[in-house]
Amino acid sequence: MIGMRSHQGRIEARTPGRGFTNVTDAVERVVAESGIQTGLCTIFLRHTSASLVIQENADPAVLADLEQWLAELAPESRSWAHDDEGPDDMPAHARSVLTKTSETIPIVQGRLALGTWQAIYLWEHRRRPHRRELVVQVCGSA
Amino acid sequence: MIGMRSHQGRIEARTPGRGFTNVTDAVERVVAESGIQTGLCTIFLRHTSASLVIQENADPAVLADLEQWLAELAPESRSWAHDDEGPDDMPAHARSVLTKTSETIPIVQGRLALGTWQAIYLWEHRRRPHRRELVVQVCGSA
Amino acid sequence: MIGMRSHQGRIEARTPGRGFTNVTDAVERVVAESGIQTGLCTIFLRHTSASLVIQENADPAVLADLEQWLAELAPESRSWAHDDEGPDDMPAHARSVLTKTSETIPIVQGRLALGTWQAIYLWEHRRRPHRRELVVQVCGSA
Repeated sequence: MIGMRSHQGRIEARTPGRGFTNVTDAVERVVAESGIQTGLCTIFLRHTSASLVIQENADPAVLADLEQWLAELAPESRSWAHDDEGPDDMPAHARSVLTKTSETIPIVQGRLALGTWQAIYLWEHRRRPHRRELVVQVCGSA
Repeated sequence: MIGMRSHQGRIEARTPGRGFTNVTDAVERVVAESGIQTGLCTIFLRHTSASLVIQENADPAVLADLEQWLAELAPESRSWAHDDEGPDDMPAHARSVLTKTSETIPIVQGRLALGTWQAIYLWEHRRRPHRRELVVQVCGSA
Repeated sequence: MIGMRSHQGRIEARTPGRGFTNVTDAVERVVAESGIQTGLCTIFLRHTSASLVIQENADPAVLADLEQWLAELAPESRSWAHDDEGPDDMPAHARSVLTKTSETIPIVQGRLALGTWQAIYLWEHRRRPHRRELVVQVCGSA
């Protein structure tokens, strides 16, 4: 396939504190704007105390379980040297290390090639609400 | 380098239950089909209870150790709210959070630029065999 | 945007043993060489006992905390079957599973679209110094 092009978009998300915000539809809108039918879409998060993850879109109990379990792997109760912004500061960095700063998804027939049960989530790791910025880069052919 | 193009392929893998399936050769075949000499290859897995990982291709004991250790980080014995499909259901989601839904590898002289000791594995996290679908997107120049 | 092209570079890093090496400037130099203004940059590490991570660039205590905490998740004291190269061998593989072999970052106006507090680190997981090789693939339009 010849005639590649690229398109860039931005998404601003306001998170309600710790937990998941589904950004799949917002990303699909950038893909649709691009007019690209076959290619790649990369979503990049410009922060180190939140992250991205592709997970099940059906049962909310999956997300609740993941939230509790990740809090156990990077506990607030651990003694952290860096705690300038409170007890959830360093666990947020640790949680983002275990998850993703970017996700890359192929585009097939103008849409993200996600499986039936997959959604893209912005995972907030701080206790308080935050404004988070994502860059979406689409490249491929029309 | 001017004259970019893209190529898309699919891989279907049948896993034997928990453990690793080496998909490196299958991915290299899609790269070879594409005719692309310099560029990028993205492998995307369309599931949330299996994942991708790039790991050592030499000693099988490495993979056995990783399997046991990951089972300790996301134990079946933990009390999970979501257990519709059995005790391995939610640990499978947790294990996929800690690993990758996609991997992206540069292409140099028509081949994946993997290091000497690297292979691409599909990591099944469910106890029973599954049919898993991967999309491979190659872009670059011939 | 029409007229895509790609550019490939390599970075060789000498690590001082366990810990973080900031490779952001070296990656920015490859992006600048490419002349690409809008697109994507992928950094790929050709090893399985070191990894990549995007983390905070400000307080060194964040990196020290991450180092200690990751050592707890993949402890040398655990009984590992694969220990050919010493007690830090298998923990290094486990640590690389939890982090990244590649990172992909959009390019905006000829620069990496990193957030204010983000840097790209090569994370060495072996105790002894190593020579590590990265491939940087840039694609987009000038």
